[in-house]
Amino acid sequence: MDRRIEVENEVLRRVKPSPEEKKRLLAVVQDLLSKVDSTAAGLGVSGIRAKLVGSAARDTWTSGTHDLDIFIPFPVQKTRDELEKYGLLIARDIAKGADRYEERYAEHPYLNMHYRGFDVDMVPCFAVGCASDMKSAVDRTPFHSEFVKTHIRGMEDEVLKLKQFMKGTGVYGSELRTQGFSGYLTELLIISYESFEGVISGACNWKPGVVIDLHGHGTVTHSESLVVVDPTDPKRNVAAALSLDRFCRFIDACCSYLEEPSLSFFFPEPEIPLTDQQVLGMISERESSFVAIVFGKPDIVEDVLYPQLDKMESSVRALLEQHGFSILNSSRWAGEQAAIVVELLCAKLPDVKKHRGPPVWERKHAQNFISKYKGSADTFAFYIEDGYYVADIKRKFTAAKDLLQEKLAACSMGKQLTESVRQGFRILENEEICLIEEEDFRRSLNKWKGN
Amino acid sequence: MDRRIEVENEVLRRVKPSPEEKKRLLAVVQDLLSKVDSTAAGLGVSGIRAKLVGSAARDTWTSGTHDLDIFIPFPVQKTRDELEKYGLLIARDIAKGADRYEERYAEHPYLNMHYRGFDVDMVPCFAVGCASDMKSAVDRTPFHSEFVKTHIRGMEDEVLKLKQFMKGTGVYGSELRTQGFSGYLTELLIISYESFEGVISGACNWKPGVVIDLHGHGTVTHSESLVVVDPTDPKRNVAAALSLDRFCRFIDACCSYLEEPSLSFFFPEPEIPLTDQQVLGMISERESSFVAIVFGKPDIVEDVLYPQLDKMESSVRALLEQHGFSILNSSRWAGEQAAIVVELLCAKLPDVKKHRGPPVWERKHAQNFISKYKGSADTFAFYIEDGYYVADIKRKFTAAKDLLQEKLAACSMGKQLTESVRQGFRILENEEICLIEEEDFRRSLNKWKGN
Repeated sequence: MDRRIEVENEVLRRVKPSPEEKKRLLAVVQDLLSKVDSTAAGLGVSGIRAKLVGSAARDTWTSGTHDLDIFIPFPVQKTRDELEKYGLLIARDIAKGADRYEERYAEHPYLNMHYRGFDVDMVPCFAVGCASDMKSAVDRTPFHSEFVKTHIRGMEDEVLKLKQFMKGTGVYGSELRTQGFSGYLTELLIISYESFEGVISGACNWKPGVVIDLHGHGTVTHSESLVVVDPTDPKRNVAAALSLDRFCRFIDACCSYLEEPSLSFFFPEPEIPLTDQQVLGMISERESSFVAIVFGKPDIVEDVLYPQLDKMESSVRALLEQHGFSILNSSRWAGEQAAIVVELLCAKLPDVKKHRGPPVWERKHAQNFISKYKGSADTFAFYIEDGYYVADIKRKFTAAKDLLQEKLAACSMGKQLTESVRQGFRILENEEICLIEEEDFRRSLNKWKGN
Repeated sequence: MDRRIEVENEVLRRVKPSPEEKKRLLAVVQDLLSKVDSTAAGLGVSGIRAKLVGSAARDTWTSGTHDLDIFIPFPVQKTRDELEKYGLLIARDIAKGADRYEERYAEHPYLNMHYRGFDVDMVPCFAVGCASDMKSAVDRTPFHSEFVKTHIRGMEDEVLKLKQFMKGTGVYGSELRTQGFSGYLTELLIISYESFEGVISGACNWKPGVVIDLHGHGTVTHSESLVVVDPTDPKRNVAAALSLDRFCRFIDACCSYLEEPSLSFFFPEPEIPLTDQQVLGMISERESSFVAIVFGKPDIVEDVLYPQLDKMESSVRALLEQHGFSILNSSRWAGEQAAIVVELLCAKLPDVKKHRGPPVWERKHAQNFISKYKGSADTFAFYIEDGYYVADIKRKFTAAKDLLQEKLAACSMGKQLTESVRQGFRILENEEICLIEEEDFRRSLNKWKGN
């Protein structure tokens, strides 16, 4: 117990912003908010009162994080076109004072800028009356911010500890690359369990299907592993984007932490890229077969890239399994290039393949199967087994590499990856994996090194 | 149609006993029956009237078959000890006139003798009032004989054709080696469908679960593929011993015959033993891995031997699969020696083995799994996948041969095979299979040669 208090105090010491850091942030926020309001007025858009939302607004940001979310709420009478047009006009005007800026697109366009050392998102939205009335996807954010602000008071440090714990254990962040816990979800967990310790012990008893409903007002049955009903919208599951994997990793981390608390959960040692020698050692120790598909990374944002990589990874697995290859593990990686790595039990299969046909008593299907395979030149043997016709036939692809070379382009993997793969790809086998020298790729191979 | 009549006439010409052959048989039967009756009287056992049962009694025996079943019915008041004692005394007395004889044991002892060119079983039984009152397993046979005799009249030739068709297609014989159709079952099928053609077309529409109940008096639900309710005992399925495999082979043969009738269904070309060169060619073409376990054949009757071989075959398959080997096919063989042959996708697996543990949220099991595998010297990597803990660990047996060498003796395979294997066995791999030179073994390899 003492050990835990010691660890958590040290965590807070490291991640809680100092009064000076807070002061600096507040000054920039004030500057931005008043600029938005006056710019709006100057453009003839009346009644705009910009809002700071996100962790900066709730005192739940960790030291060193310089992210600001400024929302520009438009009256609901405005059209979406007007919102986009005036929203960007206002934001661009303010961006004149920024180091650099760019327009980005989620459901509608917004501006990201580097402003006085801060990473600022300036997002136009509609000032709807309640979250469930939203006209655009971002409209609910101010309600989240409001809810947290009024319920988190006195528990801000607990949020800081939990966020850092999640960052350290790799489950923080709701973007599609990670599919982990969002900031809002983290805050709701603290509000629900009332402390860092409460969340950690609570999660130790989680099972898929656990429901947390602060207001007991949930109206919909959700199928996700974790259901946290949005206090501002009874139909919504705040944890909908959390993957089973991150859900489980969090449970695992919580239980391990309770057993043996240590600072390394919050601040783990960075993973070290494997050297050529380590890669070769890993492969020869396991004796399995590695195949990497390497191709150009398309120039798209991560939230588009990673779902396509995930899709490609599972298509490649399905293709290999369909053709009789047994998969041990796989992973996807994107850096300068991109790659799918698959570990196979065997990369080479025998010529013969067992092909099961219809049951003997389904005569229509049986006749087709018989006339196709019985006595054919590519049939080694034809027989009945467990009630089914079976033909031992010639396997089309005996090497995983040949199969991928010929069939990869037909795999389902999203628009941009399909284009990229059509432009070319390489298949690396076993020690050839060392041809990818990027450190981040070599770090990703720690998955197989373990321990 | 003409073709079929032509084929079937030729079959009858070959298998229907000539009047001379029948006369010879009848003479021997008369001789035996009267000898039994007088010997019984001589021994002071009154009221014995020996009976000829089986196909010889029903005119459904095929030419060249010289099997006689003589039953010696004792009054039901006799004890089993008396039945055995006097039954054998009578039989042994008659065996004095035989070329040779031996005592055999089914449920109770009987005598088998070679007598004037015939293979005679002389079986003591109880003269019960009806089949379902039977005191010993053989007591129902006379009722079967009686039923067939009174219902088969005029359809004897149809039985001959069907029996020969079943012999030729390898599905005749209810002994445990074959698990095919018994003579009685064959006769009931003819009585039910009224002709050879009727059975063949009928079987083409069979599916597992088909029920044939001549008297519509069945009282029990059976789970076997084919249910033929015994007209002399409503609780009994005459086809209970028929395996799914023989059931399916029969359906397949019937459909093929209807499509293209030919004499080869009744009189197939004998299988030719594979030469060394053919064995080697077969293995190298398929590219799979063959493993044969060779051991001494215990000196036991086939009905004891084959169930043990079947058990051993499935135990060996289970052992290999448990340890990650993929099986393509397998077979069992007994000649001078005995062997189980297994064809594997790969006989060698990599060092690494994926070992799935409990779900992350089952903490009790999880703790055991973690403390056993996480960070252990034999663990390559430890991670969470699809909600489960997984350890990539060192495989204990990477070669099928090593696995069998160490674990075969512990496989379940019946008393006599266990003893035989304990006395020693050899594992042959791939081309080493040629070390078994017995023709009958080489014939059994046609399973893999096919076409």
